Amino acid sequence: MTAGRPNDRAPRAGRRLAPLGRAGAASGVVHLVGAGPGDPELLTLKALKLLQVAQVVVHDRLTPPAILDLANPSARLIDVGKRKSRHTLPQDDINDLLVALARAGYAVVRLKGGDPFLFGRGGEELAALRAAGVETHVVPGISAALAAAASAGAPLTHRGLAQSVTFVTGHAAKGLTPDLDWTALARANHTVAVYMGLTTAPFIAAQLIEAGRAPTTPVLVVENASLPSERRVLTSLADLPSASASLDGPALLLIGEVAALAQIQGEDMQQLAVDALGGGERRSA
Amino acid sequence: MTAGRPNDRAPRAGRRLAPLGRAGAASGVVHLVGAGPGDPELLTLKALKLLQVAQVVVHDRLTPPAILDLANPSARLIDVGKRKSRHTLPQDDINDLLVALARAGYAVVRLKGGDPFLFGRGGEELAALRAAGVETHVVPGISAALAAAASAGAPLTHRGLAQSVTFVTGHAAKGLTPDLDWTALARANHTVAVYMGLTTAPFIAAQLIEAGRAPTTPVLVVENASLPSERRVLTSLADLPSASASLDGPALLLIGEVAALAQIQGEDMQQLAVDALGGGERRSA
Repeated sequence: MTAGRPNDRAPRAGRRLAPLGRAGAASGVVHLVGAGPGDPELLTLKALKLLQVAQVVVHDRLTPPAILDLANPSARLIDVGKRKSRHTLPQDDINDLLVALARAGYAVVRLKGGDPFLFGRGGEELAALRAAGVETHVVPGISAALAAAASAGAPLTHRGLAQSVTFVTGHAAKGLTPDLDWTALARANHTVAVYMGLTTAPFIAAQLIEAGRAPTTPVLVVENASLPSERRVLTSLADLPSASASLDGPALLLIGEVAALAQIQGEDMQQLAVDALGGGERRSA
Repeated sequence: MTAGRPNDRAPRAGRRLAPLGRAGAASGVVHLVGAGPGDPELLTLKALKLLQVAQVVVHDRLTPPAILDLANPSARLIDVGKRKSRHTLPQDDINDLLVALARAGYAVVRLKGGDPFLFGRGGEELAALRAAGVETHVVPGISAALAAAASAGAPLTHRGLAQSVTFVTGHAAKGLTPDLDWTALARANHTVAVYMGLTTAPFIAAQLIEAGRAPTTPVLVVENASLPSERRVLTSLADLPSASASLDGPALLLIGEVAALAQIQGEDMQQLAVDALGGGERRSA
């Protein structure tokens, strides 16, 4: 992936944007591009093509270097997750930046983790660009839930186990808890995929159990889906609080009977699967 | 896309599988690969790489020729949607075929439209392959709802309009209707993406309205998402029955306030958007 790429990508990423000599040129164009879950091979062909011709790539803190390495060597990389002493650039400032770059005539790729339109705030960026009259296109990406399901071998829908799947975010402002329709989410024959749900996992588990979902309902936690550092833990709603405490990366929760179909490594994990399905007692070994 | 490819792909696709001289070789491997919504550029890099080294590609009737053209020229293509005088091969037979191909030592790509694990019955194929001890990997794909949202510019989640999204199928056995939790689906601040929902659209609209969703709720119908033949219609729950009657291709319904953000061509469509949001009267022109 790094063939022919300079090794100074990390320092470059933090540089301030300088004019590239295109001021006054025809209006630019912005592509809101799904970068997928992290594995560069899960980029779409279209995303790769756009990266290869982009003049400016605006990306987030978590975009893997292996993906940024695929960008045109002359492209300017702007990390909007590292400004202001490691604080994320506010969304309004990102919107303004994208509009300004397009008005300066640049071909801009705005890389979004996963898919731009699933918890990516891509809709807000698109709205701002439309309001400014900027030509904008959206390229879908592999969202984390699809990547986690694929790599674990746990389908999101499956005959007899889940006829539908709901994607929610477990994210909540500091000190608050997610405000979701727990009754709707607790229904049977249904998978719930929770994005950014690790820190609020204990609350989510309690709410779902209170709303009627069985405490033995299997839960698959997938950290860093699709990356070499991926870790998978199979647990149950009842045991989710303790299981989630040992993880700290970006994680996705898959809640529902399909989670028990996940492939996991090692005997302990197999046993957890049996436990999650209520099929046996935990062995003392 | 077709450079260097023979022009006889269509006849080849229907041929019976003949031994490729690998009988008795080491056990094969099956990749369940998401083919995405149809546009070859929405394949992942991994899907392309696997197609290029596959010995056998097992695909469905709707897989676009431009995607099959990307397969290794020496790969055998098997269309499991065209057997038995144009009837689809039963799922059990597909499972058996995949197992037999793997046991014969082939590197098999099983192409699934969209994502293998979202209404693709990929879970059933994976279960059969696992039961047979076949090495199997799953590669996620761009699901139709993500492609439709991206091409229309209508986010699946959006601050203030939709905090979550549920994926359901509108498919039902002949003479039956989809059996879904309409109350859960009718809740506000929530997007519903209906796969294969065109024929049951009138029933779905009636159920959602009866369950409390406003008749004015915007509905975006996207036919052939990502293909040159893509068509988009913006309507409302109340008008969905008449709007869906004019469409007949594979279509996805996006139900919820986000649908009104869709970009549509022509004044009539703009007016429909206004109507859908309850913002004005239809002009006589």
